[in-house]
Amino acid sequence: MRAARYYGKEDIRIEQIDEAPCGEGQVRIAPAFVGICGTDLHEYLGGPTFAPTSPHPVTGDTIPITFGHEFSGVVKEIGKGVKGFQVGQNVAVQPTIYCRTCQACTRGVENACYRGGFIGLSGGGGGLSDSVVVPVDTLFPLPSNVSLDIGALVEPLSVAWHAISAAPITPDSTVLVLGGGPIGLAVVQCLSALKTKKIIVSEVSSSRQAFAGQFGAHHVLNPKTYDLVAMSKELSGADGPDVVFDCAGVPASIATATQAVRVRGTIVNVAIWEKAIPFQPNNLVFREAIYKAVLGYQRKDFQAVIDHIANGTLKPERMITSKIKLEDLVEKGFLPLINNKEKHVKILVDLSAK
Amino acid sequence: MRAARYYGKEDIRIEQIDEAPCGEGQVRIAPAFVGICGTDLHEYLGGPTFAPTSPHPVTGDTIPITFGHEFSGVVKEIGKGVKGFQVGQNVAVQPTIYCRTCQACTRGVENACYRGGFIGLSGGGGGLSDSVVVPVDTLFPLPSNVSLDIGALVEPLSVAWHAISAAPITPDSTVLVLGGGPIGLAVVQCLSALKTKKIIVSEVSSSRQAFAGQFGAHHVLNPKTYDLVAMSKELSGADGPDVVFDCAGVPASIATATQAVRVRGTIVNVAIWEKAIPFQPNNLVFREAIYKAVLGYQRKDFQAVIDHIANGTLKPERMITSKIKLEDLVEKGFLPLINNKEKHVKILVDLSAK
Ligand SMILES: NC(=O)c1ccc[n+]([C@@H]2O[C@H](COP(=O)([O-])OP(=O)(O)OC[C@H]3O[C@@H](n4cnc5c(N)ncnc54)[C@H](O)[C@@H]3O)[C@@H](O)[C@H]2O)c1
Ligand SMILES: NC(=O)c1ccc[n+]([C@@H]2O[C@H](COP(=O)([O-])OP(=O)(O)OC[C@H]3O[C@@H](n4cnc5c(N)ncnc54)[C@H](O)[C@@H]3O)[C@@H](O)[C@H]2O)c1
Ligand SMILES: [Zn+2]
Ligand SMILES: [Zn+2]
Ligand SMILES: [Zn+2]
Ligand SMILES: [Zn+2]
Repeated sequence: MRAARYYGKEDIRIEQIDEAPCGEGQVRIAPAFVGICGTDLHEYLGGPTFAPTSPHPVTGDTIPITFGHEFSGVVKEIGKGVKGFQVGQNVAVQPTIYCRTCQACTRGVENACYRGGFIGLSGGGGGLSDSVVVPVDTLFPLPSNVSLDIGALVEPLSVAWHAISAAPITPDSTVLVLGGGPIGLAVVQCLSALKTKKIIVSEVSSSRQAFAGQFGAHHVLNPKTYDLVAMSKELSGADGPDVVFDCAGVPASIATATQAVRVRGTIVNVAIWEKAIPFQPNNLVFREAIYKAVLGYQRKDFQAVIDHIANGTLKPERMITSKIKLEDLVEKGFLPLINNKEKHVKILVDLSAK
Repeated sequence: MRAARYYGKEDIRIEQIDEAPCGEGQVRIAPAFVGICGTDLHEYLGGPTFAPTSPHPVTGDTIPITFGHEFSGVVKEIGKGVKGFQVGQNVAVQPTIYCRTCQACTRGVENACYRGGFIGLSGGGGGLSDSVVVPVDTLFPLPSNVSLDIGALVEPLSVAWHAISAAPITPDSTVLVLGGGPIGLAVVQCLSALKTKKIIVSEVSSSRQAFAGQFGAHHVLNPKTYDLVAMSKELSGADGPDVVFDCAGVPASIATATQAVRVRGTIVNVAIWEKAIPFQPNNLVFREAIYKAVLGYQRKDFQAVIDHIANGTLKPERMITSKIKLEDLVEKGFLPLINNKEKHVKILVDLSAK
């Protein structure tokens, strides 16, 4: 079968490899659509960071590994002991890999597993192949009104759903979202699905500003033009937004977040940071504010996203800005996302396109 | 009457000034004991920072102002309309000054009032005088078994009570307290009053380490000798302490706090910071940890502290390491706290000592 295998920095090869056997408690999926995300790009440009260079503690795999962690597909084979799934069924895959024994896992926070990882980044196969074998508890049936391309968007939307679930959002909330990349735009959609009263987005790129408006932001501001702290306070009609999401992860965003948020407000950091940055805790002290960080998602987030897509409160179609063939992964996937990322939200690889 | 008045950096004068009139809703107190705290020292060494150099928005006062914000005293005069207090009664004073109209105040977070301050730092008189007039709602009657010197400790203990109330402490919690100054030691006592199972203190000074043990810490570690992250994880018997209090406020303490805390644990920052410091949010991301900041105290904290002193679960006597006369404020109060601070927890000024 075909597989997009990551060997290291700027080295991804579309190769022919053997299919994995489908063991007990496992299901074979034929991936249908696979999203490319910032983590993939980071590995490509500067990795291996995530991808294991020594055997991964859970998967046992070492590079080369198959890429692709945001995917939907069709059930092809059911392993021994698996109940509740049928060949031919459409599914989304939650790619979390976790050890089940560490203190994070036993506390029920398997998304922060100390030995964790992701299918498609840490070994254990990946979505960018004709066949992948996954544990049955990674699977979410897609309702008949949720198509397979939309199914590939469930993963990034679940990051956002998990993030907004960490904050005390009510329909009356004023929320500031810093950064309008795929994750910030997913947060905007999830807030919009909850009918949040005021969603303010800060984003530097004009095409991403346009996406933010389409996805439900009430105010979209360029932080180079506006004083975001002052403007978000003014728009809140109070002493600042109730909740701020940092989906940018730059020194300016944490400074804005900690100065904009209202007394006893909440900042949720979704970003992953390249290095330590300057931080003045007094900004939180003088407001008694809370700074929380979130990572990945849990089963309940995947289910909530699928439910909201099925009932029409989440309409993420417009996130798909391009569909490409597996063979064009680097040329028409990675490179446009690296060189021209503002024009895109999600590029999907269509495994059926030949 | 006598009053210790702050004019600016290294300029505190014991002067004769007029008593303030006691108006409607106000009570005249003869201060009995007054604690000296780090904020007073900061103003003395490097201020004015807190002390108003233009009219304070609530008190209207400008330096010189009377010092002393941690105090007990005796009711001397009852203003018009005041009910529930009697001349001769012993009280502790909650020195919070707040505007009642800003968004912090209307949200019930008057301790973070945008125009707030403290009696004894922001004008409105202070404890370091023979008479001070305060609003009746600043007063807490001291039960007969709580002496006036202990009454002066209610304020710093309330900072600690407020801080521990912000964290999900249970009797089963493992808690790491960074810094064993007056505030860290007050946190230790409050945790001990709640019968917290494991209290670990990190402190560099050996005399303060000894205090921490006396006040109820189960493990006292020198961060120069021990790897606090590793040791606190080991002592927790799990992946780290449930809660970490930062009462040190140095780059090393925030680094330790964010690396030691367990998955989904809570860091409570009590410290006030001199400047921005390096911070790596990923330390919180990979544990989904919470970083909260607290400021001052509320009425419920004062009441809880007084109740716990009265019922014997808080026994703060040993915090008092010296008692001095008002005339010796700088010589025997400020200077020992500046030059020899590890030997002291609280120095109290005894207003009745002549
Ligand atoms: N916590 C998790 O589990 C998780 C999962 C996926 C991604 N992430 C992280 O979330 C972050 C966002 O991901 P993404 O794919 O959307 O990244 P992205 O780089 O595509 O988007 C970031 C956006 O922020 C904008 N930006 C930069 N500086 C800004 C500023 N000062 N103010 C406002 N906007 C600014 C950029 O223009 C960009 O559009 C990244 O740090 C990523 O690593 C975290
Ligand atoms: N949030 C509030 O309302 C409030 C109120 C009062 C005080 N404070 C702040 O609380 C903090 C503590 O107050 P304090 O009066 O106890 O101050 P302090 O300076 O007397 O105590 C700090 C202690 O930390 C210790 N320390 C320094 N580096 C350390 C390290 N790396 N590891 C462990 N310990 C270390 C010092 O030896 C010292 O004993 C200060 O920042 C103060 O401004 C806050
Ligand atoms: Zn991803
Ligand atoms: Zn685990
Ligand atoms: Zn003080
Ligand atoms: Zn106020």
